[in-house]
Amino acid sequence: MPAPIVTLTTDFGTADPYVGMMKGVILGICPRTRIVDLTHEVPPQDVAIAAWTLKDAAPYFPEGTVHLAVVDPGVGSDRRGLALLAQGHFFVGPDNGIFSAVLPADQVVSLTRSQYFLPRVSRTFHGRDVFAPVAARLAGGLPLAKLGPAISDPVRIKLPAPTRQADRIFGEVVVVDRFGNLITNVPETMLPTGRPLRIHISGRAIPGLSAGYADRAPGKLLALIGSSGRLEIAAANASAAKLLSAGRGQKVEVRVARSR
Amino acid sequence: MPAPIVTLTTDFGTADPYVGMMKGVILGICPRTRIVDLTHEVPPQDVAIAAWTLKDAAPYFPEGTVHLAVVDPGVGSDRRGLALLAQGHFFVGPDNGIFSAVLPADQVVSLTRSQYFLPRVSRTFHGRDVFAPVAARLAGGLPLAKLGPAISDPVRIKLPAPTRQADRIFGEVVVVDRFGNLITNVPETMLPTGRPLRIHISGRAIPGLSAGYADRAPGKLLALIGSSGRLEIAAANASAAKLLSAGRGQKVEVRVARSR
Amino acid sequence: MPAPIVTLTTDFGTADPYVGMMKGVILGICPRTRIVDLTHEVPPQDVAIAAWTLKDAAPYFPEGTVHLAVVDPGVGSDRRGLALLAQGHFFVGPDNGIFSAVLPADQVVSLTRSQYFLPRVSRTFHGRDVFAPVAARLAGGLPLAKLGPAISDPVRIKLPAPTRQADRIFGEVVVVDRFGNLITNVPETMLPTGRPLRIHISGRAIPGLSAGYADRAPGKLLALIGSSGRLEIAAANASAAKLLSAGRGQKVEVRVARSR
Repeated sequence: MPAPIVTLTTDFGTADPYVGMMKGVILGICPRTRIVDLTHEVPPQDVAIAAWTLKDAAPYFPEGTVHLAVVDPGVGSDRRGLALLAQGHFFVGPDNGIFSAVLPADQVVSLTRSQYFLPRVSRTFHGRDVFAPVAARLAGGLPLAKLGPAISDPVRIKLPAPTRQADRIFGEVVVVDRFGNLITNVPETMLPTGRPLRIHISGRAIPGLSAGYADRAPGKLLALIGSSGRLEIAAANASAAKLLSAGRGQKVEVRVARSR
Repeated sequence: MPAPIVTLTTDFGTADPYVGMMKGVILGICPRTRIVDLTHEVPPQDVAIAAWTLKDAAPYFPEGTVHLAVVDPGVGSDRRGLALLAQGHFFVGPDNGIFSAVLPADQVVSLTRSQYFLPRVSRTFHGRDVFAPVAARLAGGLPLAKLGPAISDPVRIKLPAPTRQADRIFGEVVVVDRFGNLITNVPETMLPTGRPLRIHISGRAIPGLSAGYADRAPGKLLALIGSSGRLEIAAANASAAKLLSAGRGQKVEVRVARSR
Repeated sequence: MPAPIVTLTTDFGTADPYVGMMKGVILGICPRTRIVDLTHEVPPQDVAIAAWTLKDAAPYFPEGTVHLAVVDPGVGSDRRGLALLAQGHFFVGPDNGIFSAVLPADQVVSLTRSQYFLPRVSRTFHGRDVFAPVAARLAGGLPLAKLGPAISDPVRIKLPAPTRQADRIFGEVVVVDRFGNLITNVPETMLPTGRPLRIHISGRAIPGLSAGYADRAPGKLLALIGSSGRLEIAAANASAAKLLSAGRGQKVEVRVARSR
């Protein structure tokens, strides 16, 4: 049987040993686990970015992977902890909307069984004391239902959804990556095939979709279906974010030419 | 038998491949090892921060874990290399005080047996050429005593210790984390229970201990027992370090009200 | 049989989940793989730095290690993908010169067999969709020749080579590390032993080679054979890069005294 995988998504950064402590806890409970960092550079307390990260990255892991996510401004309050199963993957973390982009789930439980936590639970670091041990139990094969009672109302945050009006599609930038690529919430499936498109953003109009970054001269703006499977505004060998002074929340509009 | 664990604590950063080279050496010698990064962002040559990191993180790993720590301004001089056993964990690194916070040790040896090093030892990178191979041997089960002669005088640096005078406890900030939390050297066990406290720092007075970050309105200062088990000055969803313009070395005083 | 090792060298940074996705793909195909990050902080699209990284780090890994390198400004164009065997190690990545410093190879193939890629290959992220799956196949034991037809003309970029004229050796800085050490392209083997040297850089002359960083007073410039096995200009407990306002490309000249 292949070793179980636990991924980590946090806003802890990597300068402090917080992430390392979580890994120590996981390996202490389930030594065979392979641990993979998705990111620890979620902007502090930015639950929405963590939600997009999980949605975009989880499909590239094998079924049964446990995704541990800790962006947790409410730690120590009465917010619940969750474990859930969605699309064949497990997710563990605070009930603050961080799993909104992978819902609906097949099964959600509230983490109430303290026998699966560390013996001493701090009020400020449930990533280490609650969620890491629970993720390690799931990695080790403990059934989800053992972790607590089923619930049906996990917190959802409203992630911006694209809309359509006749031949116009309205979306927005939801992620800006290291290269300054502007990744929108408009999925490839919303775009008609075989009809000319024009993409409008920040007062600029981009004619049509490119196949790849290298299709345009260096420094030129382009639009394409990015590796996320969604519309992306990029610039060949340059930063679209800088070129457009655009960031998260920037509106984008796709105009579809009429068929004749 | 579970796979052995080696943790890494360095000031090497992650842009250069130095850490990767160390991991290659470890896996070449003991392929089963699970390697966990504690941090590579120790400020260059800041032995004290590395010492606190080891003290705070080691307890969250299983017994028998090997903690490899390389903050080594004296590399290439005649400073000794050490391996030691303390609190059920192994520690490997330069003899410059980096292990001060986990001493006293049950056993300390000076690394003199070059058959356990890489065949060619550079003068500038003992992390790769001496300490990584030695850590991998310990991970593989080599007894500590094989690595060199026992010594009884490992270098200690003076880490600031809290003091008490009647109803006042004097400590200082020893770590500032990514969130701007000010983590002091005052352990929970020094604070009396059931008596009102007032915490003084940077000209501000904080009444009493909060249970968690979420106990105060956003932006408000608070004091609590942090995840390190020590007194911490924080701000709800904000940076106490910024609010107070305070950093490492900042004095803190706890005043305990008289019992009546 | 020890678990196979795959190393990663990219310009993806660690804030986005791109690296994590690649790891998910690798573990999905070859679950036993140990994955080691060399660096993800290659400056965007800086193929030469990636080439030096591979050259310097690969020798510290066991034979048979697979080194996956993705600095790929040409992704989506018709640039080829490569897998090659050199010095007992496998290398996988784009055919853009990134392997120049480990050539000549014993065997090079062009990655044309899409049955070894992910089922759906994006135009913008071959690291995840092409190179990670191929690296995982090699890690799992697939023979190199299965991956595509042999080629004999992998792209090479011109990495600056040191030259010699009588008693002068001319080189340049090729890497600046986190500590501000200036690592040149002059190998130890080019320097005569037993004859006095003088190193000239940025209008300064450094007399002779030091054995280690600690041989000079703090802040003083020194030259030594660094851990790369090449000439390095450093400063004891300080940054030579800052002291000299020098960076990559800075010329260095070694003058060898005449024997008498």
